Amino acid sequence: VAEPGTVQPLRFDEGALLVLDQRALPGTERWLRCESPGDVADCISTLAVRGAPAIGIAAAYGLALAGEDRDGAAELLRSTRPTAVNLAWAIDQVLAAPDALARARELHREQEAADRRLAELGAERFSPGDRALTHCNTGALATAGYGTAGGVLRAAWERGRLHQVWVDETRPLLQGARLTTYELARAGIPYRLITDSSAGTLMARGMVDRIVVGADRIAANGDVANKVGTYPLAVLAARHDVPFYVAAPLSTIDAGTPSGDAIPIEERDAAEVAPGLPGLNFAFDVTPAELVTGIVTEAGVLEPPYEEAIAAVAER
Amino acid sequence: VAEPGTVQPLRFDEGALLVLDQRALPGTERWLRCESPGDVADCISTLAVRGAPAIGIAAAYGLALAGEDRDGAAELLRSTRPTAVNLAWAIDQVLAAPDALARARELHREQEAADRRLAELGAERFSPGDRALTHCNTGALATAGYGTAGGVLRAAWERGRLHQVWVDETRPLLQGARLTTYELARAGIPYRLITDSSAGTLMARGMVDRIVVGADRIAANGDVANKVGTYPLAVLAARHDVPFYVAAPLSTIDAGTPSGDAIPIEERDAAEVAPGLPGLNFAFDVTPAELVTGIVTEAGVLEPPYEEAIAAVAER
Repeated sequence: VAEPGTVQPLRFDEGALLVLDQRALPGTERWLRCESPGDVADCISTLAVRGAPAIGIAAAYGLALAGEDRDGAAELLRSTRPTAVNLAWAIDQVLAAPDALARARELHREQEAADRRLAELGAERFSPGDRALTHCNTGALATAGYGTAGGVLRAAWERGRLHQVWVDETRPLLQGARLTTYELARAGIPYRLITDSSAGTLMARGMVDRIVVGADRIAANGDVANKVGTYPLAVLAARHDVPFYVAAPLSTIDAGTPSGDAIPIEERDAAEVAPGLPGLNFAFDVTPAELVTGIVTEAGVLEPPYEEAIAAVAER
Repeated sequence: VAEPGTVQPLRFDEGALLVLDQRALPGTERWLRCESPGDVADCISTLAVRGAPAIGIAAAYGLALAGEDRDGAAELLRSTRPTAVNLAWAIDQVLAAPDALARARELHREQEAADRRLAELGAERFSPGDRALTHCNTGALATAGYGTAGGVLRAAWERGRLHQVWVDETRPLLQGARLTTYELARAGIPYRLITDSSAGTLMARGMVDRIVVGADRIAANGDVANKVGTYPLAVLAARHDVPFYVAAPLSTIDAGTPSGDAIPIEERDAAEVAPGLPGLNFAFDVTPAELVTGIVTEAGVLEPPYEEAIAAVAER
């Protein structure tokens, strides 16, 4: 059930997956109707739906739309984006189930419940008056409908433990400026937008009390792949003693990938940075575990040494 | 004398200062005709001309256009932008001279000669095959007509000591994406454009051999105010052992400002980041001297301890 202030990115209805087109937000609320795995794959690769948990759920529903060739559909969906591990995880979950649609719906509910739980646990790390900084978009739009880092911010706000959010605009696609500001405004949470490269000077001036970001894949040693620009934030946070939290459901943890070096990093079209100019556009970067204060999951806030903490929750 | 490939930002001709409108570049080459100190002040505060050395020269010519109220004109020009010290320096130089226009022309020539000299000295620090990263725009457009960090890159290229430039796009006003790519392309220097927050992952992957940036003001202890985003680069460079150079003429050194804490940092309209959203837009940040490998000036490459090195050149 959606609460006031939340925007659901995905809805399964009458044999089709409805995807809120995030490329058109915040200006336009346009829904795309997907009737096949190919339609869903297109929505994922063109970023109509984005955010590691959300693309996992979308792919699960996409597989539920497959005809007889479920393996082909799974392969197609798996190939859309390489970095977020939630995608492969959700596909494997649905492939292993007797009823694909029932399992997709269940994953959707389970992941939303996981978000709510991790948001509560993360909010406990906040203190009244906190000015928190976040990067990219990790709210309801990026997830099963509540939010990871965005959920933590929301829960902290509801508990009176948040004064204001600094929102990184998040170039090149401006998920922070377009989507996070939109969600925070709807939830009534005060924020101020900054350029990505302003975060350092805010930390140096003592204007940031806490950083919380999402993740696209967490390796067995605690290294975190997330939207490009996360790694510089973590380095600056360490220098300025600002606690740096990663919020992600257990489905984002990839115990089969030993470290960040082994995480495939998507390189996107340089035209996203500036059309017509030679460029290089890595969509993600890797933050070494040593820079992460805690990983907020639905099973608790993991703390160093991550190798052990992750092994313990991965067995569950 | 302009060389092929350079674009001169300022020209004094027939009793007026002609300013190349950098807001319209690279799409349009439009010249603005300034016939009074007020016209020049408008060009500086609206960023038609920008770059610490260039606004110093523009202000010098602006003062040469003053009628009897030279002090009023000086005050007006001085108030346009707070961070770059070249502005106040150039105004003081012209105020102290018997013939304002002759002194402005002389400063223009002297500063261009200083750029050429510091570019040569900086290029000596480069090695064949170097992939250098730069931020904002510090070429001919930003200066008296040759470039500071941009001049170093150019001189390194001409001497076969540069393989390629990584250009930070430099949000919010995209001086890197609009102006630096334009200048590098005209000079035939290979480059690739990146988002500001990609620099960290390029350094972590060993893809950056050297960083060179300009400066708006250098304090007596070697702290450097420059375009916002410079400080995170310096922190990342230190972590990855990438040499980090600041290139600036002696006119950018403010021996009267003891440290970076005392440098006024311009806060610009948040609408530059995203119109209509609450934001915060510091135009500059401060890089502590401890993170700077060398300060490339026309009097030599200054090295730590900067307090002494700066005191020695400030006396000249």
